[in-house]
Amino acid sequence: MYTLKDCQNVINTELEGIFLNKEPAGLYEPVRYILSVGGKRLRPSLTLMGCNLFTDEINNAIYPAIAIELFHNFTLMHDDVMDKSEIRRNRTTVHKKWNENTAILSGDVLLVKSYEYFSKCPENIFKGALEVFTETAIKVCEGQQYDMEYEVRSDISIGEYLKMIELKTAALIAGALRIGALAGQASTYSADLLYEFGRNIGIAFQLQDDLLDVYADPEVFGKSGGGDIVTNKKTFLLINALNSKNTGLVNFIKEWMGMAKFDKGEKIKEITRIFDELNLRELTSEKIDYYFSMGLEFLDKLPVPDSRKSELRKVVSKLLDREK
Amino acid sequence: MYTLKDCQNVINTELEGIFLNKEPAGLYEPVRYILSVGGKRLRPSLTLMGCNLFTDEINNAIYPAIAIELFHNFTLMHDDVMDKSEIRRNRTTVHKKWNENTAILSGDVLLVKSYEYFSKCPENIFKGALEVFTETAIKVCEGQQYDMEYEVRSDISIGEYLKMIELKTAALIAGALRIGALAGQASTYSADLLYEFGRNIGIAFQLQDDLLDVYADPEVFGKSGGGDIVTNKKTFLLINALNSKNTGLVNFIKEWMGMAKFDKGEKIKEITRIFDELNLRELTSEKIDYYFSMGLEFLDKLPVPDSRKSELRKVVSKLLDREK
Repeated sequence: MYTLKDCQNVINTELEGIFLNKEPAGLYEPVRYILSVGGKRLRPSLTLMGCNLFTDEINNAIYPAIAIELFHNFTLMHDDVMDKSEIRRNRTTVHKKWNENTAILSGDVLLVKSYEYFSKCPENIFKGALEVFTETAIKVCEGQQYDMEYEVRSDISIGEYLKMIELKTAALIAGALRIGALAGQASTYSADLLYEFGRNIGIAFQLQDDLLDVYADPEVFGKSGGGDIVTNKKTFLLINALNSKNTGLVNFIKEWMGMAKFDKGEKIKEITRIFDELNLRELTSEKIDYYFSMGLEFLDKLPVPDSRKSELRKVVSKLLDREK
Repeated sequence: MYTLKDCQNVINTELEGIFLNKEPAGLYEPVRYILSVGGKRLRPSLTLMGCNLFTDEINNAIYPAIAIELFHNFTLMHDDVMDKSEIRRNRTTVHKKWNENTAILSGDVLLVKSYEYFSKCPENIFKGALEVFTETAIKVCEGQQYDMEYEVRSDISIGEYLKMIELKTAALIAGALRIGALAGQASTYSADLLYEFGRNIGIAFQLQDDLLDVYADPEVFGKSGGGDIVTNKKTFLLINALNSKNTGLVNFIKEWMGMAKFDKGEKIKEITRIFDELNLRELTSEKIDYYFSMGLEFLDKLPVPDSRKSELRKVVSKLLDREK
């Protein structure tokens, strides 16, 4: 069985030299730059691992996997423009290093290129897998739209938030796995189970991300926390706090959110104190457990030998810090 | 045979109600808006007419044609952001009516939706036609990149300019026709001929556009000319003028181009005077004739009865004002 590391190596090998010396350089250099910044290559690896559940031959899944990584990086490039983010993975974002027009157009060509790579996948699975890819891409755009709309709203329900992260984050993880299953000639039943596994795990990933921003050990997490608090990012924790019945606390949070100038450390401390008071660390952790278990239930049902599932189970357990 | 008007009607009927009531409205309303602004629907009509050259049954071409129109409108939405254009087809552009993020994200989903529509085309032509669609999309992005790069360069050669408009403008017209031919079960030979017809005609269209900005009869053209001169747009005429051996004239143009404040009417008058002095009206007109004739030669070679070609010949002749 392929480990995550094996899959990452396959992906990185394929990406090495991609679009090298392609003209116009002004269009393709930013693409090479964002792809070289790396990241975990989690989504394309999930496609390979999804395929590997059903067959030892994962070649059929490589081009779709690359397409998914290209698509993912397209979303990062455009999201960074929309969010005005200056740093990603410790490096300057494309629109800061070059300019916004470059990030828009290089992002566009990256999206088209993702389809080009997808089209190289084997004929017998092509049409079905492409449909999943396009459906997924649409969900990701819709999720980003909701995310932007929620930034300027203060009355978001937990349900709305969960729906948003399902579209923006979980859909691509679920889609990556489903495409892997199709590449592995899995039945529709199996592909559906794997999709549901990915959807639940994907939601758990985002909740974990929300949680770690506040409660991660900086030494383990590698960056100092509280960034989401500083920028008023509507995380699972903040939305829960804003939905609290305790109007005193809610008003206190809103006051902090409305301040144009403030001491970052103090804001993080004060808001974290409220999260503590509302037991949001526990609540979020329970919610992650819930989605994690739900996801694993779907994986358990998958009609393949348990030994084939262990790698995937190990990867998600590790990423969600739920190793037993 | 289907006339241009027939084809436009088919397209407009398909587009009516498209994405209606789709959520999130903030994502799909701008898409509906740009599609409702209309335009000639030239590119999708060329797909239908390209198909109609080979068969009376054009249903196979409808979804690809819609995909091409969606793709075209995606490029308009993003180009308007990049060019900071505030008006298109006499209406406020999406990024002015909403904001830049909306134009970026709604453009993105429009591009993905173009693939969704493309995927509805019949199985037997799907893979080949999709390849043409993706190749074309990449060319359009590359062309836009060159166009942006040329804005800040003053040493563009005529060859570079022609290459750029071939990518940015002609490729989509040529691709639209080739996809139509494939939908009509044409041979590769015929599809290639039609592509070359479209490529040459597409270049002629852009040159005509450049020419009309300066020399159109405002009463016929419907808008007052000289917009390209005011904004220093690198048209075929300006590039020719800048490549003139007459350094006095070149410096005079560069002086006007470098002015931050000026009387628009005077600038148009003065630059037009130089274009006149350099015989650029005639030169451009000859170049249009050249590409127009080249295009028609490819159409002539097409192994279908001449009667089937008359509609297409009529359309391009009319658009290029080359009716005999």
